Amino acid sequence: MRIALDVMGGDHGSKIVIEGVQQAIAEGIQVSELILVGNEAEIEQHLREHRNRDKRLRTVHASEVLTMQDKPVEGLRRKKDCSILKAVDLVRDGHADAVISAGNTGGIVAASTIRLRPLSGVDRPGIATVIPTPENEFVLLDSGANIECRPIHLLHYAVMGSVYSREILGYKNPRVGILSNGTEENKGNELTLQAFKLCKQIDINFVGNVEGHDLCHNRVDVVICDGFVGNIVLKTIESFAQGLVGWLKLELSKNPKRMLGAFLARNALRTIKRRMDPDAYGGAPLLGLNGVVMKCHASASARAVMNAICVCREALQHNINQRIRDEVARANERIESSHAA
Amino acid sequence: MRIALDVMGGDHGSKIVIEGVQQAIAEGIQVSELILVGNEAEIEQHLREHRNRDKRLRTVHASEVLTMQDKPVEGLRRKKDCSILKAVDLVRDGHADAVISAGNTGGIVAASTIRLRPLSGVDRPGIATVIPTPENEFVLLDSGANIECRPIHLLHYAVMGSVYSREILGYKNPRVGILSNGTEENKGNELTLQAFKLCKQIDINFVGNVEGHDLCHNRVDVVICDGFVGNIVLKTIESFAQGLVGWLKLELSKNPKRMLGAFLARNALRTIKRRMDPDAYGGAPLLGLNGVVMKCHASASARAVMNAICVCREALQHNINQRIRDEVARANERIESSHAA
Repeated sequence: MRIALDVMGGDHGSKIVIEGVQQAIAEGIQVSELILVGNEAEIEQHLREHRNRDKRLRTVHASEVLTMQDKPVEGLRRKKDCSILKAVDLVRDGHADAVISAGNTGGIVAASTIRLRPLSGVDRPGIATVIPTPENEFVLLDSGANIECRPIHLLHYAVMGSVYSREILGYKNPRVGILSNGTEENKGNELTLQAFKLCKQIDINFVGNVEGHDLCHNRVDVVICDGFVGNIVLKTIESFAQGLVGWLKLELSKNPKRMLGAFLARNALRTIKRRMDPDAYGGAPLLGLNGVVMKCHASASARAVMNAICVCREALQHNINQRIRDEVARANERIESSHAA
Repeated sequence: MRIALDVMGGDHGSKIVIEGVQQAIAEGIQVSELILVGNEAEIEQHLREHRNRDKRLRTVHASEVLTMQDKPVEGLRRKKDCSILKAVDLVRDGHADAVISAGNTGGIVAASTIRLRPLSGVDRPGIATVIPTPENEFVLLDSGANIECRPIHLLHYAVMGSVYSREILGYKNPRVGILSNGTEENKGNELTLQAFKLCKQIDINFVGNVEGHDLCHNRVDVVICDGFVGNIVLKTIESFAQGLVGWLKLELSKNPKRMLGAFLARNALRTIKRRMDPDAYGGAPLLGLNGVVMKCHASASARAVMNAICVCREALQHNINQRIRDEVARANERIESSHAA
C-alpha cells in the first residue's frame, strides 16, 4: 500500500503535512510507502527536523504549487509541474495506490478527474464528507465537486455514499435520503424530483426526501445533493457549530460564577468539541474515480493528515472502488431495463 | 391598522393563536382591529376563557381548514371556505391591512399570491426569515416560497431583503450577499452567476458571493438564494442549533460535577437559547405582495404570535410595500437601461 501526499497547497504549508505523516508513522501505520510530493529542498529540511527518517518515506520533487487563488483548470494548464498533478500522476502511472491533498479543492477535483478518469459507469466524481451529529454521523455527498448536477449523478452519489457508509463507517444498511425542501415525494426542484424517481428503482435503502430538520436527528446516514447545495450545507454547519461554541465561551467568561460553572462542566464541552472537530475524520474522499483520492480541509492539522492516511488505508483495504464499480453497474442496468420496459 | 389572523392550521390549533392575540392586547399593542378567522364556535369558546373581551376583537367564520397534509393549490381549489383564503381575502377586499397564519406554508404562499398578486414590478414573492447569530442577525431570502428561481427573482429578493433589513431590523446600509459555494465572483451555479451580474448593477450594498462559512460571522445582513436552498439552509441551522443544545444538556447531566457546573453557568446557556429561539421573531414575512403577509412557524407559541403581530405593525408603519415597489422599480429600470445600452 503506497500513499502519495501533495504536501504543498494547504493553508499551513508543507510543515503540517509532514508532521501528520510523522504522526502516522509513530502510530504504526501499516503502509509500504509514503511519497511526499512537493518542493524537495523544503521537504528535506522538514524531514531533518525529525530524528529518525523512516525507510518508507520517499520524496518526489515538484517545482510548482497550485494555490488557493489559482483557477483550477486554467492553473493546471499553466503549472504543468505542480505538486497536485505530480501526486495524482503517481496513482495514474501505478506508482501509488492513493493520493492525499489539502490544496485547492477545484484543483484536486480537476486534476484527478482529468488524469484518473471516472470509474466505468460513473459520470461525475463527488466529495463525500462525514458530518458528526449527537446520535450518528452521516455522509454528505456531493459536498462541492460537481456544482451543476444531472439526476443520474445524484443516483450514482446514492450508490457511492451507500458503499462508503457501509465499508468505512460500518453502517450495515445505511439509510439514503435526497436533501430537499420537504419530506413529501412531491417536494423538491426539477433535479431532485427526477433523482427521486431513479433512486426508488435501485437496490439501496432509500428513505426518500430528507429536509434540513432531519440532519441532526439520526434519521439518515447518506445525504445526497448537488455540489452547490452540499457545499453550502457543509460550510453552514461548520460555521454555526464553530459560532455557537465561540458564543458559549464568550457567555461563560462573563462573570466568575459562570467561569466556575464552565470549569466544572469542561469535560462536557470537550466531548462535544472533540466530536464536532473536522480533523477527527481527516479527509473527505473524492469518490467515483480510478484511484483513491482524499481531500483534506485547507486548514487541516497534522492530526487531520494522519487520519486522512488512515482513511485511505481503509478505503484501499475494503476495495471500495471495485465495490462502487460493481454496484453502480447494477444500478445503471436497473435504470436502463426500466427505461426499455 | 387592522390585522387578520388565520387561527386554524398551525400545529397547536386555534387556542395558541388566540392566546398570542390576548398577550398582544395585554402588552398594549396599538391596532384598531384584530380579526380572528376560523371556526367561530371554537374561537368564541377560547375567547370566553379570557375575562375581558377586547372591543377590537372581531370574528370571521371559516368552515374549512387547509391542513399540513393538503397539497396547497389543489387544497385551496377544494376548500373554498378555508380560513387562510378568507383571511387573505380580508386584505384583498380592504377589510384588513395585514394577515398572519401559522398554517401550511405552501398554502399561505399560494393563497396570498393568487388573491393579492405580486407588487407591481415584482415577479415572485419570497419568505424573509431572520436568523440570529452571535454578533448580528441576517435575513435569509427566499427561505421556501419559490423553489425554482430565475436570476431576476434573486435580484428582487436582494432589493426586498435590503428594504426589510433597513426598515424593520434597523440596519443602516445592509450588506447583501448571494449564497454560493465560494466567495469568488466565478463561483456559483448558472442561477447565481447570472444573479451576480444583475446585483452588481443596482443601488444596494452588494458584497458579492457569500458562503456557508460567512453566515455565522457577521459578514452579511441579507442572504439571497432560491427557495430550495434557503429552505434547506434554514432548517439545517434550526436542526443543528437545537441538536447542539440538546447534546450539551445531555452531556451536562452525566455526573454531579457537570450538573453543578451547568447550574452555575445556567444564565449563559439561557442567553443563547433565548437569542436562538425562533419565537423571538414571531413570523417571517412573505415579501413582494400587495399586502402584508406574515407566516408563523407551524409550531409557533403564543409569544411567537404576539411577536408576529408586532412585526406586522412595524411593516405597516414603515410602509415597506411602498418602499419595495419604489426600489424594485428603480432596480428594474437600471437593468433594462443596461440591456438597452
